[in-house]
Amino acid sequence: MSAITRTVSILGVTGSIGRSTVDVIEQARAQGGAISVEAITAGQNIAALAEACRRLRPRFAAVADAAQINEVRAALSGLDVEVGAGASALEEAGARPADWVMSAIVGAAGLAPTLAAVRRGAAVAIANKECLICAGPLMLRAAAESGAKLLPVDSEHNAIFQVLTHPAHVERLTLTASGGPFRTWTLEAMAAARPDQAVAHPNWSMGAKISVDSATLMNKGLELIEASYLFEMPEERIGVLIHPQSIVHSLVHYEDGSVLGQLSSPDMRTPIAHALAWPERIAVSTNRLDLAEIGGLTFAQPDLRRFPALGLAREALRAGPARVAALSAANEIAVEAFLGGRIRFLDISRIVEEAMAALEGTEAGLIAKTPSSFGEVAAVDQAAREAARRIAGSLAAA
Amino acid sequence: MSAITRTVSILGVTGSIGRSTVDVIEQARAQGGAISVEAITAGQNIAALAEACRRLRPRFAAVADAAQINEVRAALSGLDVEVGAGASALEEAGARPADWVMSAIVGAAGLAPTLAAVRRGAAVAIANKECLICAGPLMLRAAAESGAKLLPVDSEHNAIFQVLTHPAHVERLTLTASGGPFRTWTLEAMAAARPDQAVAHPNWSMGAKISVDSATLMNKGLELIEASYLFEMPEERIGVLIHPQSIVHSLVHYEDGSVLGQLSSPDMRTPIAHALAWPERIAVSTNRLDLAEIGGLTFAQPDLRRFPALGLAREALRAGPARVAALSAANEIAVEAFLGGRIRFLDISRIVEEAMAALEGTEAGLIAKTPSSFGEVAAVDQAAREAARRIAGSLAAA
Repeated sequence: MSAITRTVSILGVTGSIGRSTVDVIEQARAQGGAISVEAITAGQNIAALAEACRRLRPRFAAVADAAQINEVRAALSGLDVEVGAGASALEEAGARPADWVMSAIVGAAGLAPTLAAVRRGAAVAIANKECLICAGPLMLRAAAESGAKLLPVDSEHNAIFQVLTHPAHVERLTLTASGGPFRTWTLEAMAAARPDQAVAHPNWSMGAKISVDSATLMNKGLELIEASYLFEMPEERIGVLIHPQSIVHSLVHYEDGSVLGQLSSPDMRTPIAHALAWPERIAVSTNRLDLAEIGGLTFAQPDLRRFPALGLAREALRAGPARVAALSAANEIAVEAFLGGRIRFLDISRIVEEAMAALEGTEAGLIAKTPSSFGEVAAVDQAAREAARRIAGSLAAA
Repeated sequence: MSAITRTVSILGVTGSIGRSTVDVIEQARAQGGAISVEAITAGQNIAALAEACRRLRPRFAAVADAAQINEVRAALSGLDVEVGAGASALEEAGARPADWVMSAIVGAAGLAPTLAAVRRGAAVAIANKECLICAGPLMLRAAAESGAKLLPVDSEHNAIFQVLTHPAHVERLTLTASGGPFRTWTLEAMAAARPDQAVAHPNWSMGAKISVDSATLMNKGLELIEASYLFEMPEERIGVLIHPQSIVHSLVHYEDGSVLGQLSSPDMRTPIAHALAWPERIAVSTNRLDLAEIGGLTFAQPDLRRFPALGLAREALRAGPARVAALSAANEIAVEAFLGGRIRFLDISRIVEEAMAALEGTEAGLIAKTPSSFGEVAAVDQAAREAARRIAGSLAAA
């Protein structure tokens, strides 16, 4: 064991990743780590933000909604913390001087605060999907310019990052996928799958949207895109392997025939601790992996006929960043329609596919361009959502 | 791909590891690697030595037997190579100025040439078991003094070495073991096992002695000892896991819950290429790992009742280096007696156990000491062989 010294901020401290980050920081402090906290943010849960302030003693705390400013002030009074509210306060949280920033705000609200941290050259732990899916090239360019280090927290990307000892000698990457709740279902059964069946993820407990993405494998498709951006690896050199036990989190294949992998019990504190301590390591208490107890690990090729989302994601990656942002936006609308009971499970990928085709027709100029600002990303996002809503509406009416 | 520059020597060029090393060197040269060969050695196979000289163009070539000097001269005439024969010539091969030395001479004959390479601070790829089992502390001390780097070539140790990114943060190591041909046999069936059944290794083609060691799991016990020396890890922090597919070659468990492993198809060219290119990597043609094709990997705790050799090795490691050398020597005699049809399979471990007990009685002083020279190792070795022969004789007569 060795102690680390860090000044950290946590963007999104009250969600699942944020709470695990607080746990890891407290464990690091208990080992003698000198971790001071610059800023933390929350969405709407002011009670949880106040609790985090009591545990972490940050200098600055912010909530997303500007209208909550007085409520936050009241809840945090006596805690000796500066208080902010609204989009500019979230951005300030990212901009304030922390060496290490956890980017765990869910959704598009995470983009500006994360970019603020990246622009000043911090080590930024990326748990927010939108940062790479909607704005990957923007983030990477900003990181290259400022010298910021992007530390992936997703278990798959963190696994690759842990064993990427020789980036110049990689032959290919393999992302593992649990296969989701419909791994063994027939196409016919999947056609009739209900939302409650789709959100029952076998290995991880997650929100409804990401659970459905895991059921369609769109989640893995989006992770494939993130891996391509993060590790500068072309689409055709990233494979996906169905691995229902979720123990081998991903693999790096080297040109000498060696395949390096990271394994662990499913526990997000492991990748968070890895990102926090990087380039060192710290001890963190988790359920330790016991392969003899698990007994067997299995692997299979994904079935692209039953899980077309994976193919759609590969196409979007090949087509470019605007198409990727459009894919993600159309998928959000389709999943929402499925969770709302308006369309069937297999319609999700169908809507995404048709929305992409529609944009290629009506918005070809927009889709061909690499967005150079959040404004351009937002325009693509908007067009994709409209197309997806239109298609979902016609399917629901049919 | 990138090209490496090395001056190399190969101690034991005609055996399985030596031949694979030649193959890897030729592949590295084909990629533009500037690899010149200083010295190569052979046991008795002069034709194979001549063939290696034609392929590698070394400056010096030696055979083990001094009496073969004229024969070697004749075979290598016209190849523009200095020629030597006998123990001093082998040692000279290790002493000559190569940056990188493959130590692949089988048995005790490899000790002096390897030590010569270690003493002058070379990077030494260790494929010879005796270097660590009989003289581990000696080799490690010499390496520490000269700055030599020991590069493990055994697939298990090489796997650990590849993922030992944070040595100060390791919780424990796991060596994987195929379980050998008797993995699923009952104790009763093992009692009646014949030599031809013991040498039928499921995954690797190896010599008879090491195949029997794989059947008793003594091989894994010896590897556990080597791992303890090489990675400075106490016995109780090294586990053994039965993994019949021999795909995951070993694992390093970190204090953050991450377990890093190296996987590959069974092909010694991978660890040899890793050692040759270290700290870089080079491309080498092997059967690439396809986990979807393999389908499943299984893991189980070893059964110490059926495989007592593993416990004997742990005891020897705890007792110290002289006991380790004695264990290995007694095991050689016992395996020889089994292969000669004079004792039964389960007698192998029994002989080793009883030989250790006998030495604790009659040679307690010798066994308690850490050998500080090859002479002291040889005395322990001699005493252990005598004790084992005596016990094997009485079992054979019974």
